[in-house]
Amino acid sequence: MILLEKDILGRNNLVASRNSGYFEAKEILALNLMSSPGSGKTTLLEATIGLLKGERKMAVIEGDQQTMNDAERIDRTGVPVVQVNTGDGCHLDAEMIRQAVEKLQPEQKTLLFIENVGNLVCPSLFELGERSRIVIISVTEGDDKPVKYPTMFQYAQLCIINKTDLLPYVDFDMQKVSEYALGVNPELEMLALSAKSGEGMDKWISWIRNLG
Amino acid sequence: MILLEKDILGRNNLVASRNSGYFEAKEILALNLMSSPGSGKTTLLEATIGLLKGERKMAVIEGDQQTMNDAERIDRTGVPVVQVNTGDGCHLDAEMIRQAVEKLQPEQKTLLFIENVGNLVCPSLFELGERSRIVIISVTEGDDKPVKYPTMFQYAQLCIINKTDLLPYVDFDMQKVSEYALGVNPELEMLALSAKSGEGMDKWISWIRNLG
Repeated sequence: MILLEKDILGRNNLVASRNSGYFEAKEILALNLMSSPGSGKTTLLEATIGLLKGERKMAVIEGDQQTMNDAERIDRTGVPVVQVNTGDGCHLDAEMIRQAVEKLQPEQKTLLFIENVGNLVCPSLFELGERSRIVIISVTEGDDKPVKYPTMFQYAQLCIINKTDLLPYVDFDMQKVSEYALGVNPELEMLALSAKSGEGMDKWISWIRNLG
Repeated sequence: MILLEKDILGRNNLVASRNSGYFEAKEILALNLMSSPGSGKTTLLEATIGLLKGERKMAVIEGDQQTMNDAERIDRTGVPVVQVNTGDGCHLDAEMIRQAVEKLQPEQKTLLFIENVGNLVCPSLFELGERSRIVIISVTEGDDKPVKYPTMFQYAQLCIINKTDLLPYVDFDMQKVSEYALGVNPELEMLALSAKSGEGMDKWISWIRNLG
């Protein structure tokens, strides 16, 4: 069983490596956004696209088990988008990204957002060829998530705490979540924001700009 | 790949079937609670145990990737609990339940709650030998979850909408979520409650009592 898993991951890593070469050649900045279902990934993307429009070429790959809902939301922003439906599958893999990129044909220097399937466990094991991994948790989910689901936080570069507009109504300790997350991954950067109200979005936009 | 997956599920189903026989022999009512991380499963269990104490013998199996946090919370209620840590694993399987039950040694007629790993995708594929499956979503996750993650809703008997105390602060359409959920599974029962405020808990307790 463990060998088999390594084999699947090994094959995935080959394609991820290929994607990574493709992105480098075209100077594409690919960001892999991961979270539980309903943490606000799509709302964050809509707000981000609104703030970066005119400044950057952008494209989006949307992962979900079913429906075109998220792709339709992104489509309304005017940014090219491809929806990947995974059926029973619980994560995006590198081959899905390769095929989606083939459809998208992103231009040179595109900022490519990959919205993974809503799942705080499985997507963390699958490299996609991305430049950075961003894990999003919302304040309604509880501050203990980094210790209960550590793999996701271990391999991410940035952790976004979303839905700060709901902080007054929930028990969520911002200090605690930082301690937990940094305990799992001392290199992890942390940002708190509300994609809905716009609070903190400037820090996230600066973070993207700093990546180049 | 597909054959292999069937093989894993086939082996799991054998052990699940065994668990199911064990539960029947001891008149144990086993309920499998599944949701995204942070939907409030543990808070719901704490409240449920509080309301049923004295009336029913209860026991809990807690699934998480890491930590004993949830088991410690249940332990404080005085109900026997076993924590299962799945490591990289994204769901509980029947063998984990078999071993946990061996440790718990539940008495005749115990009400056994199984809190699955927080994940709205993978746990739905793994039978545990449970009598009923309960899927929980919270109003902060958005009303489109049943169509985006249909497998979980397809195989559940009951859908609990949790955190109704937060309804005034989020965009969540109770009518819509019901339509979506019943579209996926017309037999699905629906209950709205707040484990935190106690609103609606009586309907959930009645639902359990009606199972026997």
